[in-house]
Amino acid sequence: MPRSLRVSTVRHRGGDRRAGDDAVAVEEPLELRLGDTALAVVMRTPGDDEELVTGFLLTEGILLAPSEVDRFERFDDARLAVHLRPGVDVDPTRFQRNLFMSSSCGVCGKASIEAVRLFARPAPPFEVAADVVAAMTDRLREHQPTFDETGGLHAAGLFALDGAPLAVREDVGRHNAVDKAIGAAAGAAWPLPPALLVVSGRQSFEIVQKAAVAGIGGVVGVSAPSSLAVELAEEHEMLLIGFSRQGSFNVYAGSDRLRA
Amino acid sequence: MPRSLRVSTVRHRGGDRRAGDDAVAVEEPLELRLGDTALAVVMRTPGDDEELVTGFLLTEGILLAPSEVDRFERFDDARLAVHLRPGVDVDPTRFQRNLFMSSSCGVCGKASIEAVRLFARPAPPFEVAADVVAAMTDRLREHQPTFDETGGLHAAGLFALDGAPLAVREDVGRHNAVDKAIGAAAGAAWPLPPALLVVSGRQSFEIVQKAAVAGIGGVVGVSAPSSLAVELAEEHEMLLIGFSRQGSFNVYAGSDRLRA
Repeated sequence: MPRSLRVSTVRHRGGDRRAGDDAVAVEEPLELRLGDTALAVVMRTPGDDEELVTGFLLTEGILLAPSEVDRFERFDDARLAVHLRPGVDVDPTRFQRNLFMSSSCGVCGKASIEAVRLFARPAPPFEVAADVVAAMTDRLREHQPTFDETGGLHAAGLFALDGAPLAVREDVGRHNAVDKAIGAAAGAAWPLPPALLVVSGRQSFEIVQKAAVAGIGGVVGVSAPSSLAVELAEEHEMLLIGFSRQGSFNVYAGSDRLRA
Repeated sequence: MPRSLRVSTVRHRGGDRRAGDDAVAVEEPLELRLGDTALAVVMRTPGDDEELVTGFLLTEGILLAPSEVDRFERFDDARLAVHLRPGVDVDPTRFQRNLFMSSSCGVCGKASIEAVRLFARPAPPFEVAADVVAAMTDRLREHQPTFDETGGLHAAGLFALDGAPLAVREDVGRHNAVDKAIGAAAGAAWPLPPALLVVSGRQSFEIVQKAAVAGIGGVVGVSAPSSLAVELAEEHEMLLIGFSRQGSFNVYAGSDRLRA
């Protein structure tokens, strides 16, 4: 399936009106199954579906390693099943997004943060050069071919601490782009090497949560973090950077990890 | 609870580094209950919680009218229950987001669109002036006080066909902002008067779905629509406008609803 489609449009520019066509990002549902059990239906941009599922299972704390996957079974464009290796046992109560928010310890920001602690994979201590970090969002942008065409896709990338991109992926969904990038990098090496997660959008709780669960030491974003994302990053001694644009950025947590 | 918080930051501007503080949008979980049943946990910016729940129930097709709500019961900042009027019967299978994607008719874009048809409230035929539409995203922006402060909130507004704002709301979540604006407008008049939904972000399938279910005839956004959003809008003869900025915009569906 294509990642973008051309559709008819009418462009209004001031009083001027002109018919034409325009590329839009493809959005299609994908049903994820774990064995015979329907796990989730996600709206995603087709492509890299196996990486999406792998990343989703890892960042939601359902799987502990990509090697727990035995094989994928593709039914059609909209259905993909994961079969686990014999002996791999997963907790069916972990089968939902929002899992960290509906934990039995109650619902509130603090409880959400504590719930993540149970699943988080400790990231090894690291330092990263400020000028390398400053260049990461521009490098992410260079890897967004479908965004250039449609203006409608989020991107996420895993970057090594020397600034080398390990995996960059695009998707209509922010969470999917993160899952795809992490799934791709996890397929190459697990645990992940020291790296930062770089995102085109906002850094919400769930994005930082995914990084924490995957053992990634920091998140860098083009846009703003939320209050709960900052708290979660502090709790896990992660680096959290927002408004990273054209060489400038704001550090919201973990500034001691940056060297000049 | 506040909608923004100040946190310590370190600002890097080129080689310059300066400690300071910065406002971030508050993100906190809210558990929605329908009677005694937990319905969903959403990450939201506190405030307008009752409108959020009302809008959520209406746009997900769980309730047919705001008058079906008898009363709200507030437990604490993170828990809010809705009690329905005696005799109001809701379908418990409708209790999930993603409902339209996991319908029994199968999973694919076409099936998702057909599932929405069962719930959509027909919008009355309408026409709207192109210059009024062109001004709506700027007017939305004028109603974003917390965005100005934090850069981290989405906005959604319902605008009458003469351009008057009926309700504008902000939230860290795009869907929440839409639910809050629709919930607020629904509290004033239901069915909604002829209006357009205006959003600060992308127009994905779920955003257009919420408009269709609420009986809103069109969606105007600052950013890009997805392929499935365009298909859904065409199917429901809705107006769908993207990249609406500074008086220019692209029409992806329903251009016959615009008059010069």
